[in-house]
Amino acid sequence: MYRLHIANKHYSSWSLRPWVLMRELAIPFEEQLSAFDPDSSWTRFRDFSPTGLVPCLVDDEQVVWESLAIVEYLAERHPGVWPADSAARAWARCASAEMHAGFAALRSQCPMSCGVRVRLERHDEALRRDLARLDELWEQGVTRFGGPFLGGEAFSAVDAFFAPVAFRVQTFALPLAEASLAYVERLLALPAMQQWYAEALVEPWIDPQHEAEAEAGGTLLADYREPRPGA
Amino acid sequence: MYRLHIANKHYSSWSLRPWVLMRELAIPFEEQLSAFDPDSSWTRFRDFSPTGLVPCLVDDEQVVWESLAIVEYLAERHPGVWPADSAARAWARCASAEMHAGFAALRSQCPMSCGVRVRLERHDEALRRDLARLDELWEQGVTRFGGPFLGGEAFSAVDAFFAPVAFRVQTFALPLAEASLAYVERLLALPAMQQWYAEALVEPWIDPQHEAEAEAGGTLLADYREPRPGA
Ligand SMILES: N[C@@H](CCC(=O)N[C@@H](CS)C(=O)NCC(=O)O)C(=O)O
Ligand SMILES: N[C@@H](CCC(=O)N[C@@H](CS)C(=O)NCC(=O)O)C(=O)O
Repeated sequence: MYRLHIANKHYSSWSLRPWVLMRELAIPFEEQLSAFDPDSSWTRFRDFSPTGLVPCLVDDEQVVWESLAIVEYLAERHPGVWPADSAARAWARCASAEMHAGFAALRSQCPMSCGVRVRLERHDEALRRDLARLDELWEQGVTRFGGPFLGGEAFSAVDAFFAPVAFRVQTFALPLAEASLAYVERLLALPAMQQWYAEALVEPWIDPQHEAEAEAGGTLLADYREPRPGA
Repeated sequence: MYRLHIANKHYSSWSLRPWVLMRELAIPFEEQLSAFDPDSSWTRFRDFSPTGLVPCLVDDEQVVWESLAIVEYLAERHPGVWPADSAARAWARCASAEMHAGFAALRSQCPMSCGVRVRLERHDEALRRDLARLDELWEQGVTRFGGPFLGGEAFSAVDAFFAPVAFRVQTFALPLAEASLAYVERLLALPAMQQWYAEALVEPWIDPQHEAEAEAGGTLLADYREPRPGA
């Protein structure tokens, strides 16, 4: 049985990728959650992950770190991880690698913090460019391969790579094209996304650094966590 | 015939990865070099690359961007891109993905600028951590799979992913473990690396922004370009 190490569902965007992929494809795994702690995460995570980062997949003796490498590891062992069509698969890998290394403004200015809603006060040029690129990329993926997912009819790893973006769009009400917002709704409606979200809302941990980052760019409008932090 | 879009050999670390891989594996391609220009690279690169970045591989109708996606595209079509052994291949993909998204301090503080030599004046904590991780990762790759390359006997995509680091180590005389320096020498001695380096030294373009970045952290000791820029 695979063991998947993740961190807080409320904050950990990278953890969400393989988690939602494995759940949607019904690949069985045991979840091992280690909560963030600004002082000790790296040291504690190093016990199981060579980079001190999550996600990290353990398959018997084999330790697989980095979300994209986890996806390729699963793709060698399970059908449906990438689209079956060769052109769609090439495109899906390009878009996933672009997400893996890019979208820096989106990632830093709109960190994942699923349970809150924030009104973004600043839209700088870099963020606008990331959003324009998202619109372009998603439009291409959905139309070129027939939709409704990015690589065609079925949810695959490339959708998993953009799953955290769906939560960011929800949290910060990011201005995107109508087709993009429809795609975000499609992601948020997936059973695995709903499960992740529900579990994120009842987590007992508050990480001050992640909280501060989420509120840095705007005004907190709502917090759907239960019990409400600080209450 | 593949067409591989790259930028200046002197500076473009991402371009080097698929280029050196394809040359070492003798995968034929036509090279298309577009020189950097601070004002217009992005716009000009957008003519052939969806992200406005290089490298970008064109295979008839199929456009493949992002170095890691290019590698996976080639891996579906040519033997030897990844190690044949399954454990070595999983490890190689993890290390490549880690390089693709990580080593931020190394990448920003020690940019690739093959022809110059710089004495680094600052070693901050983040850079030290990146170097320690390089030592650890390379030691593991070389010993676990038998060496002399990271995934075993043959040069593969994971070595291509660290090829730009070899030039950075040479330029900035980075303090690494002896085994790491031996690995760097092995990379620098590859015929494809020697060809890239020779061609970088005679390029006619100087990009002020890249020059400034390379010299930001230290003192310029030597410049092996011919003719010497500004001379
Ligand atoms: N490129 C890595 C990124 C992993 C990453 O940055 N993970 C974050 C959590 S989302 C982490 O573990 N941070 C550790 C910490 O904040 O101490 C991947 O794709 O897996
Ligand atoms: N994650 C991308 C990074 C590509 C990248 O950043 N390329 C640089 C050159 S090394 C670029 O095209 N920069 C454009 C510019 O500076 O205008 C990849 O793996 O291919």
